[in-house]
Amino acid sequence: MTVWSGGRTGVNYSAGMAVDQGGRARRRLSTEERREQLLAVGARLFSESPYNEVWIEQVAEIAGVSRGLLYHYFPAKKDFFAAVVERESERMLRMTAPVPGVPVREQLTAGLDAYLEYVETHAHGYRAFHRADAAGDQAVRRVYRRALGAQERQILAALAADPEFGPVLESRPDTRLAVRGWLAFTTAVCLEWLRGAPLGRDQVRNLCARALLGVLAP
Amino acid sequence: MTVWSGGRTGVNYSAGMAVDQGGRARRRLSTEERREQLLAVGARLFSESPYNEVWIEQVAEIAGVSRGLLYHYFPAKKDFFAAVVERESERMLRMTAPVPGVPVREQLTAGLDAYLEYVETHAHGYRAFHRADAAGDQAVRRVYRRALGAQERQILAALAADPEFGPVLESRPDTRLAVRGWLAFTTAVCLEWLRGAPLGRDQVRNLCARALLGVLAP
Repeated sequence: MTVWSGGRTGVNYSAGMAVDQGGRARRRLSTEERREQLLAVGARLFSESPYNEVWIEQVAEIAGVSRGLLYHYFPAKKDFFAAVVERESERMLRMTAPVPGVPVREQLTAGLDAYLEYVETHAHGYRAFHRADAAGDQAVRRVYRRALGAQERQILAALAADPEFGPVLESRPDTRLAVRGWLAFTTAVCLEWLRGAPLGRDQVRNLCARALLGVLAP
Repeated sequence: MTVWSGGRTGVNYSAGMAVDQGGRARRRLSTEERREQLLAVGARLFSESPYNEVWIEQVAEIAGVSRGLLYHYFPAKKDFFAAVVERESERMLRMTAPVPGVPVREQLTAGLDAYLEYVETHAHGYRAFHRADAAGDQAVRRVYRRALGAQERQILAALAADPEFGPVLESRPDTRLAVRGWLAFTTAVCLEWLRGAPLGRDQVRNLCARALLGVLAP
């Protein structure tokens, strides 16, 4: 197994350095809370820097933990990034899960609202997620592709179950590709939006909704 | 300046190793032809392997040149990859250049046909181009983003000059984002198509055309 590597040499963090700067006594986190905290730190770092510029010392310092503890949770950097990507993927899937029985046209608006709410409030996680394909590490990329595949399947299942879209799409061979393309559309639009494109959330939602309905139109 | 690095150690290619295997006498290439040949080798290698797994020895071996000559053309790996990306970008822009006076609806079909012809016949170059964002090197990514920006501007200019779309789009604040999203749509669809999605070229063209017209619909 590859361990974390490429750390900045010559940098030494003393054990106490990252301890709560306010001087407050720190409560011991549970295993689950600690993991959550480390993943949040990871989302921020991986969203701000390319994969190979994220160092173990930074993560440990910001989280206020020893390197040993970090290794305990994530034996290698790729495991850490893969866990960040999986956490974001699970959140997105949960937030945009279809509601059985509700027409796709309605769900699309509500689903995109939830998605854009996520994009805005978890901008770091969202950016980090979409950097996974650029990580250069095969294992991380696999996790990313699996996550995209899960989003694709979730949308295809909702479409198939819909009285309006279901029958149309069944007869069309390009439905899967259309959904794959639309996910790329939405991602590109949202990343540009986060970079400061001057549009409100409703405008972005309407643009993305129009793109899906336009491409699925009979 | 960073030079090529990370080469496989312990591998030695003798000077004659890569000489024309058929034993035919090789004609000396002009500077321009040699550069072209090296870039074609680069497109293939960068399309097949992640950036950091492409080695100078491979390129020199396949092209049948010395490492010294390769350094002469491209002082560093990032320069080489950036040149591959720029060559593909220029080709795509040229092939899809709008024809003044022809309606966008017509041009879209012809432009997509040319684009898909390019995707099929230059699959290596196309894949290599879209791997640039994942190269991890800032300089290469800048070249890639500039290339995407040029594609975006070319499409926006054609839309602005069109009697049908021009007036509509001027009043809409989301046009740039729509075009950016559509380029991502088209890229994702074409990369999946190259991976073996069972669609004919016409089906892919119609899908991409529908996506643009759908998203730009008033």
